[in-house]
Order: sequence, then C-alpha cells, then structure tokens
Amino acid sequence: MKNLERLFSQTAKAIRSSEIRDLLKLVAKPNIISFAGGMPDPSSFPKSELVKIAEYVATEKTELAFQYGPTEGMPQMLEFLSQKFKSQGIDAAVNTLLITSGSQQALDIIGKIFLDPRDLVMTEEPAYLGALNAFRQYRCNFVPIACDSEGLQVDVASEQLKKLDRGGGSLPKLIYTNPTFQNPTGSVMPVSRRKKLVDLACEYDIFVVEDDPYSRIYFEEEPPPSIKSFDKEGHVIFLSTYSKILSPGIRLAYLCAQPELIKKMAIAKQALDLCTSSLSQILGYEYEKRSYEEKKIREIRENYKRKAELMISCMEENFPDGCEWTKPKGGMFTWVKVPSPLNTKEMLPKAIEKGVAYVVGTAFYANGGGEQGMRLNFSYPTHEEIKKGIKRLSEIIRDQI
Amino acid sequence: MKNLERLFSQTAKAIRSSEIRDLLKLVAKPNIISFAGGMPDPSSFPKSELVKIAEYVATEKTELAFQYGPTEGMPQMLEFLSQKFKSQGIDAAVNTLLITSGSQQALDIIGKIFLDPRDLVMTEEPAYLGALNAFRQYRCNFVPIACDSEGLQVDVASEQLKKLDRGGGSLPKLIYTNPTFQNPTGSVMPVSRRKKLVDLACEYDIFVVEDDPYSRIYFEEEPPPSIKSFDKEGHVIFLSTYSKILSPGIRLAYLCAQPELIKKMAIAKQALDLCTSSLSQILGYEYEKRSYEEKKIREIRENYKRKAELMISCMEENFPDGCEWTKPKGGMFTWVKVPSPLNTKEMLPKAIEKGVAYVVGTAFYANGGGEQGMRLNFSYPTHEEIKKGIKRLSEIIRDQI
Repeated sequence: MKNLERLFSQTAKAIRSSEIRDLLKLVAKPNIISFAGGMPDPSSFPKSELVKIAEYVATEKTELAFQYGPTEGMPQMLEFLSQKFKSQGIDAAVNTLLITSGSQQALDIIGKIFLDPRDLVMTEEPAYLGALNAFRQYRCNFVPIACDSEGLQVDVASEQLKKLDRGGGSLPKLIYTNPTFQNPTGSVMPVSRRKKLVDLACEYDIFVVEDDPYSRIYFEEEPPPSIKSFDKEGHVIFLSTYSKILSPGIRLAYLCAQPELIKKMAIAKQALDLCTSSLSQILGYEYEKRSYEEKKIREIRENYKRKAELMISCMEENFPDGCEWTKPKGGMFTWVKVPSPLNTKEMLPKAIEKGVAYVVGTAFYANGGGEQGMRLNFSYPTHEEIKKGIKRLSEIIRDQI
Repeated sequence: MKNLERLFSQTAKAIRSSEIRDLLKLVAKPNIISFAGGMPDPSSFPKSELVKIAEYVATEKTELAFQYGPTEGMPQMLEFLSQKFKSQGIDAAVNTLLITSGSQQALDIIGKIFLDPRDLVMTEEPAYLGALNAFRQYRCNFVPIACDSEGLQVDVASEQLKKLDRGGGSLPKLIYTNPTFQNPTGSVMPVSRRKKLVDLACEYDIFVVEDDPYSRIYFEEEPPPSIKSFDKEGHVIFLSTYSKILSPGIRLAYLCAQPELIKKMAIAKQALDLCTSSLSQILGYEYEKRSYEEKKIREIRENYKRKAELMISCMEENFPDGCEWTKPKGGMFTWVKVPSPLNTKEMLPKAIEKGVAYVVGTAFYANGGGEQGMRLNFSYPTHEEIKKGIKRLSEIIRDQI
C-alpha cells in the first residue's frame, strides 16, 4: 500500500486506543498487580454448574445452540427476561427487548441509531470509559455533569439543559448514566434523583441511557429500583448484562426500550453480527432457569465485599495524607484522588515499573480533566495482591509528593 | 416519546429491514419449506465432538473460556491461524490477524474504518446481501460489476476503474468479492481473474475484500488458491469463518490484513463488543487442534453435493422452459432466473402462501435490478423438502407464465 491514510474514514482517523485497552495488555505480564480492567474474580464463575449446562446443551440442544438464531434474541430467552422484568415492576413485553453481544454492543447500537457528528450526549463526570469510547466513534460532543457522592447531579443537569434550551442551540439526545455502583466511583443515585431524571427526559423529550451492570452486586443493602422502573412514557433505555454475574467471556447482555427503538436497533444489529452467540444465550437461559444465580450471587457479594473492605483498609493504612477514595457499597471499583499537583498519568509508567497498574482518571473525563483521579478494581486481584499492590502504589504516591 | 423521529441519526433514518431478515422469520412457521436463509444442515454440527470439547473446556479451561480476552483474539488461536495460513502459502504473522464475531462483524468493521458517506465500493452483481447491508449503513455508493459464470468480470471492473480515474472523480476504496462458490450464484473465479484483481488493487492502490466462507465446501475439485495468496503488497483483506464448517451459532470468524489495518480494526472492535466470545474461540481452537474438522468436512461435502444435485435434478424435471439456474460445484446456493416479465418479488407472497420461500433477486443488486432472480439454499432443507419445495415453486412459476 502506497498511501493508506487517504483511504481511512473520518471515524478511523478520529479513533484512538483507549487507556484501559493499553493497560489491559499489561495484566498479562508477570509480576504486575493489576487494579486496571474490570474483570470478575475467576472464582465467581459457576464452574460445576457450567459443566452441567454445557453437557446438557451440547447433547440435548445442539441445533438451538449451534445454529443461527433471530437477531432480536432467542424467543425463550426474551420470554424469560420479559417475566423477570415484570417481577421487578417493569412492564417489558417481548418486543421491548433485544439481546446484545455484551453491553458494549448495546452502547454501540445506541450510538449508531442516535448520533450524527456533533450531536450532544450528556454524561456523568467521571463516566464509564467504554461508553465514552462507543459514543465517541460517532463523533458526538459531550456535555459532562459532575458527580458527587450520590452520582450524577441531576439539578446541575437540569440547569444545563435549561441553559442549552434557552440558548436555542441543540439539546443532548441522550443522558448516559451508570446510577448503581457507578463505574468508576461506586456511587449510588438515590430514588429522588432517579425520578427527577425521568422527569427531565420527559420534559425535553430525550432519552436516558441507564447502564446497569452492577446492581445485583450489593454488599449489604439492596440498591434503589432502576430508573427504568419510574419510566412511564418510554424515555429510558435500560442495559443489563451477564458479564458480572455469570461470565464476561460469553458476551451476553440485553436491553429494554420502547418497541420503535427495538425495531431500529434489531436492523442495525443485523448488519453488526446477525445475532448474538446462540450458545451464549442458551447458557445464560439455562443458568437462569435452573436458578443457579440465586446461590452464586451471594458468594460474589460476600467475596467482593471482603475485597473492597481490604482494599480500603490498606489504603487507610498506607496512603499519605491528602489522598481520598470512595467507599463503594457494591460493584467492582473505588475511585482515588491524589493531591494536586500529582498527576496519575505521569505517575503510571513509574507504577508499572514498580509492578502495579490502574486506570488513569483522564480516561473517564470526556472533555479533559481528571488528572488527579485513578480507578482501582478490587474484584479481580487476590487478597495478597490487594495488600501488596496498595503498598506499592502508596510508595509511588509518597515518592511523588 | 412525543417526537422520536427527530432523534434518529442519518444512519438510522436510512437503514431498512433486509429481505432475508423478514424471510428468515418465516422459516419458523410450520409447513413452510424455506430455501431462504443460508443455514448449515444441523446434521453438520459435530455433536459428539462438541460434547467432548464442551466438557473439557468447562472443566479445564474455565477461566480462559469465561473471562474477558484480548480484543484481537486469544493468543493461542491467533498463533494457530498464523500457522494454518502459512501452510496455505500466506505469510500471515499474528499481527495480521483479527478474530471477529462472525464475518458480518468483519464487514461492519471494514465499513467503519473505510467508508464515509458517498464513498464508493465496487461489488459483484449480484452480491452477498449481508455485505451490501453492512456497507450501506455507512451510506456509501456502490459500483456494481456484473458476474458471469466465472464470477466478477475483472476486465469490466478494470474498464470501469479506468473510466472513473480518467473522469477525475473518486475511485472505489474497496472491491468486494466472494470469489469461491459465490453467494448467491455459486460461481468460482479462476486463477487468472484472481491475479488480475490483485494487479488492479495495486495499480489503483485500493483494497480487495475477499470474503471466503465456502472454499472448504467443494463437491469434487478443490477450488483455486485464495486471492490473498497472490497478494504481495497488502492489498487484500481476507475473511474466513467457522460458520459453515463448525457452527454459525457461536459467531466465530477471522480476518487477515496488513498490520496497520489490524491495529485500526482492533480499536474499532473494542468499541463494538470488547472481544469475541472467549468460549466460542476456545471451542473453535480445540476443534481445530484435535483435527475434528478433517473428518467432518468430508461428510459436509458429500451431504451438500447430494442435496445440490437433487435440487438441480428436481428443477430440470419440474421447472418450465425459460427458467435458468446455476450448477454450483460447492457452497450452499443456486441462483435461478425466471423468464421476463415474471418478477420474483411479486411472486413471493404467492410462494409463501403455497408454503415455499426463497430470497428475491433484488436483494443482491446494490443499485436496483435482479427482478428475475432468486437465491435458493440447498444445505438446510431435507431431501424430502427439496423435492416438495421445488415442485411447489415450479407450480407457482407456471401459474405466472
């Protein structure tokens, strides 16, 4: 190829590698303790249950598991999910559901059907970087709203929307939020804000994208009902996944939205991958149907709770004054702030040299900022690694002060 | 939602349901014999082998199969494919490979990194409709080149490129071809055309996209080497899949292209689905490593050969004068032409009423045309269904004449 660059699309010219991506590669290197990534503890995989299901499926459900399936998802899976939603007070008919190849694909499909270049997306700040990456490929602009300890500040969002509306410019098409054990801060949005957010979406006739991978992973108290459960007029697109409660490797997730959207999304998905792995769908379906989750989720909660507590007590013990961190009551992450003028991006190569990795704060800031932040994952590393890794990290921070 | 339409992207406004999609839904209805779709015969799934692999993987490879993996693909899978390509005379280093969630995803990624609105893609006419759908979402324009019994007429393509070049307008960025047992016609491009196509891509410094799902499914004679094997300067993007030789339901495919492209593609794929199902990858890897394919593929060839011959002899026996059809020497499809002024799109509702389905020809024509064509699949229906279905179809055609 003589001149490759001229053939790339505007999108290809704009896309860049994500910080999490480059870091995930380091996990493979020996002696590196990684608090980057967002992987479940491998012990959370229901091994014996999966062996049973795998045997059953390969023997009894061969055609279903290995043949193409409908783009929307396997009918029995959709029917099951519809009933499950109903038991949670969400009236989700089968035609409001779409099975996706992980929630990442759901985010991509949302970007595809809504976003033209320069369209606006309102997001939390900091926000889940996978969502920023998915939307960014459609060359949208972001309107970040700062989070506090209760997540997205809905009052600030309201003011911002009012200002944009008064100014006569365009409004965001979407408000993206991760309201329950937020990635990266671990915060939980209270009911009042959830309701207010639905009201805002109604007022401006736009969509809330509620990304909910972690609500089942609470340590003690069950989190509030989903934003979707307060949505009476179809303004919320709800995303859930099997990645954190069964397996991320099977790439199985689903979304719930009004039927007109599901129709568009299914056509878009058909051009993306025809359908989500039938094998993954039947594994997920059997796992649910056999109620294996009920038992396993208790183990996961207990396991992650202990790891989170350990990480926090290690930080309390080792981190120098001026550092702050969140104390999540569920999920997989804590968000750490180092004192200014320290910069987590500049610190990272030293951290890696010392054998510890994290995700730099800037990755979660759509429009710049976050230099003092870092996301630490506590679900994947062992207790030993958490102790050692936090010690290493504290030494690096102390070196920098 | 008061006004949904205003929120849709240009892409969402442009996308439309595909004919194959709407038809696949009919397969589920009882009493309909479907020659639509492109599904393997369920008997081709290596059931006992899959049971063995599934047990082994769930027991021994739990973490690998159920955890997130690298976006590019599992290292051992990439290494295996690299060796496999080398044995076929293609110097495919690991960094020239990308595992995708079916070839449909590969086509979407190619569209994403190359195509801006109004960019040109040269295609066969008729061309695989899944590729047209994938590229169409990027709002490109098509330059269709008629196929003859030896596939894409490369001389015509050459003339067309010369004309576009002389006219000073833009050239196509991609030439899409399905050279071996083409979907929908079953044609095979001879070596001379394959070499000529590589020369053309070099001359105009553009890419050939070689989509190759069927080359392993030859009935007697092995088809010519891939176009990729004649590519010395990185002008060919080669797509292959496990959908037709192992299982379409696991959504496992791969592509080979120059490293600069793989880098861009991997970043694009990360925003699409993070990675292809780890479970699917390890199933495909074990299937290959254990050489299960070698045995199974002989059965598939023999099975599809008999079905193709049966379908053709049924057409010879039943179809009225003026109908024509291709006699494929591999793959899954035959292409039928009914005499003018018959129109397969207008005929379809009657066919469905009579209990037989096919894909209308117009679906394979990027810029209109194909009204007399229809694609018939012979891999999925049973012998009994082929006999009955062709009889039904012939009655409908006779009714129309």
